[in-house]
Amino acid sequence: MNEGKAESERVHEVVIVGSGVAGLSAAVYAARADLEPLVLEGPEPGGQLTLTTDVENYLGFPEGVGGMELIQNGKEQAARFGAEFTHGTVENASLERRPYELELSTGEILRARALIVASGASARWVGADGEDELMGYGLSTCATCDGAFHRGDDVLVVGGGDSAMEEALFLAKFADSVTVVHRRDELRASEIMAERAREHEDVDFRWNTELEALHGSQADGVTGATLISHPEGHPTDKADAGLEVTRETVDVGGVFYGIGHTPNTDFLEDTGVERDESGYLHTRSDDADRVTTVTAVDGVFAAGDVADPRYRQAITAAGTGSMAALDAEAYLETLEHVETQPIEVSQ
Amino acid sequence: MNEGKAESERVHEVVIVGSGVAGLSAAVYAARADLEPLVLEGPEPGGQLTLTTDVENYLGFPEGVGGMELIQNGKEQAARFGAEFTHGTVENASLERRPYELELSTGEILRARALIVASGASARWVGADGEDELMGYGLSTCATCDGAFHRGDDVLVVGGGDSAMEEALFLAKFADSVTVVHRRDELRASEIMAERAREHEDVDFRWNTELEALHGSQADGVTGATLISHPEGHPTDKADAGLEVTRETVDVGGVFYGIGHTPNTDFLEDTGVERDESGYLHTRSDDADRVTTVTAVDGVFAAGDVADPRYRQAITAAGTGSMAALDAEAYLETLEHVETQPIEVSQ
Repeated sequence: MNEGKAESERVHEVVIVGSGVAGLSAAVYAARADLEPLVLEGPEPGGQLTLTTDVENYLGFPEGVGGMELIQNGKEQAARFGAEFTHGTVENASLERRPYELELSTGEILRARALIVASGASARWVGADGEDELMGYGLSTCATCDGAFHRGDDVLVVGGGDSAMEEALFLAKFADSVTVVHRRDELRASEIMAERAREHEDVDFRWNTELEALHGSQADGVTGATLISHPEGHPTDKADAGLEVTRETVDVGGVFYGIGHTPNTDFLEDTGVERDESGYLHTRSDDADRVTTVTAVDGVFAAGDVADPRYRQAITAAGTGSMAALDAEAYLETLEHVETQPIEVSQ
Repeated sequence: MNEGKAESERVHEVVIVGSGVAGLSAAVYAARADLEPLVLEGPEPGGQLTLTTDVENYLGFPEGVGGMELIQNGKEQAARFGAEFTHGTVENASLERRPYELELSTGEILRARALIVASGASARWVGADGEDELMGYGLSTCATCDGAFHRGDDVLVVGGGDSAMEEALFLAKFADSVTVVHRRDELRASEIMAERAREHEDVDFRWNTELEALHGSQADGVTGATLISHPEGHPTDKADAGLEVTRETVDVGGVFYGIGHTPNTDFLEDTGVERDESGYLHTRSDDADRVTTVTAVDGVFAAGDVADPRYRQAITAAGTGSMAALDAEAYLETLEHVETQPIEVSQ
C-alpha cells in the first residue's frame, strides 16, 4: 500500500503490540484480511510460551509441540500472509487523535489506525535483596527454562499457587531437593496440584516463611538465601510491624519465583483504555451482552494474557488474538477514511 | 473410577456434548485434569470444521492443516489423555437434580456431575443440487475461512441479511467480482451493511434469484451455478407452483452461503439454561466482569459456536473449549459430593 514511504510517514492499518501467541494469531487473521499488520516484538519476543518446553494441551498436536516451535510456526504462518515484524518496546501511546501514535524505546514513532494490544503478562518478582543482581544467575522465574542448570542442587521455589507447584514438580526432576517457601500455612494451589507436590518425595515445604535476601554473585550464581518466618504467616509484614520473627540462612544453588504475573500495560496509563487494579485490560460486551476484544478507546483491542488473569492458556490467547483481528477489521470497515489530522513527520 | 459399573449406573464427572473443535479442546483439558470426560459425538461428528478442506488461520500450522486432519489430531490428543468417545444425540436433558441426566436418541441415559455443551451451530444450507458433493470444494459457509482461496475468481454469495453482506464485502478483497444472489428484491440486512455492500464497486446483486444447482467436481472445485429467477421473487416457490421462471447458468469459481446458522440447543429448552431468541447460549461474567463459560445452571458450561454468534472461528472455539474444562474442573473441586439434592437455578 504505502511501502514507498519512509516508516516515519507511514500509517499502518493495524499495529499489533506483542508477538506471543495472541499477537501472532491476531497477525494471521489481520494479514489474511489484507490489513498488512505490523507486529511489534518487545523485550520477550514470542512471549511466555517460549519459556515452555512441551505444550501438551494446545489442540491439534497429539504428541505435543515445543513452545518455541509453536511460536516459530505461528510467526511463519503470519509472515506468509504478509504480516511484518519489527523490534521495539512501546514507551508511550498517544490515543487522543488519529492516527494513533506509539513511541518506542528507540525514539521511533509508529502510526496506526487500529491497535491490538497483545503485550502479555510478565512474571512477578518477590522484592528480596539481591534479586536485581542475581536474576538470570541462579535466580529464575521459569523452572522449565532454567531447571536443567540445577542438577544436584538444593533449590527453593517461592509461592503457594499452581504455578509454584508446577515449578516445584518440574525442578524435582533435576534438583537434589526442592523446598517450597510459602508465606502462609496452606496452599492456594488447586487440590490436584497441591497433592502432587505434597506427595513428591523430593519436595518439602517451609510454611509461614518468606524469602528476604539472596546471596551469591554473578560469577558464582546463587549460593544461599535468607528466610524469614513467623508462626502466624506473612513474616515480612510481622517484621515491619515490629513483631519477633525468625531468620535463617540456608545454602541453596538456585531460587525460582512462582508468584504470578503482571500485565504489561504501563504504556496505556492515562490513555482512556480501562485497566483493573492489577493492570489487566478490560474489554467490553456487545449489545447482545457477548464478549468482544473492544476496549474503552475506539480502535484499540486487547487479546491474550494482557486481558486475561483467569485462564491464561496458549489456546485461549490464540482465540482472543483472532477475535481482536476480526474486531479491528470490522472497526476499520466502519471508520471513515478521513485521517482527521495531517501527519507530522518526526525529526 | 467406576469402570466396573454398567453404563446405565455410571456417573461421569463430565460429559461433553459435541465433538467439534470446542468439544475436543475441552476434552484435552478435562482429560489432563483426570476427569475422564465422555465426549458425545452427534449427527455431525467433528463439527463444521470437517466441511472445510484447508484451514489456514488456525495458529500453529504455517502451511495450513486439513479440517478433518485437525479434528483427527484433536481426537487422538484427547484420547491419549483418557477421554472417551461415544455416539449419540441428546434428545432431552434433565438438570433439576444431580447427577444430571441426558437422554439420547437411542434411549440410553447418561449421567454426569458436570456438562460442557459444545454442540455447535449448523450453517443453513440452501438445498441446491450438488451442494452435498461440493461443500468444502469451492462451496463454503464461511468467507472468513475460505475467502483467501478465491483471489481472482468470480464468486456468488447467497443471502440477503447482514451475514451475507459481511461475506460479500470480505470476499470483495480477493475475488474479481462478487454477486449477491437474493430471492427477494430488497435486503434484510441492516441499513449500514446494505449500503456498504451496494456502494462497493466489486459487489453486484441478482434480485429475485435463487441458487438452483452447483456445477463442478471435488477435483476441479465449483465451476458454475444455475440460477433461477422470477420477477416477483421466491422463484423456487414460483417454479413449484408451475409458474414460468428464468434459468441461467453462470461461470463462477466459488459459492458462499450466507443464510445463517442454527445453534444446536433444542435439547436445553426449559432446562433453565439461558438462550437468546436465536437459541444461542448465554454465558456469565465473573465477579471481576470477565467472561466465563458458566451458564445459568450450576455445573453446565458452554463452549464454541453454540454460545458464539459473533466470531465462530476454529481457534476461538478451541479457546472457549479449554475455558469450559477449566471452569468445570474448578466447579467439580468445589462441589460437595451430594448427588441428589434439588438444584437451584440462579436468576
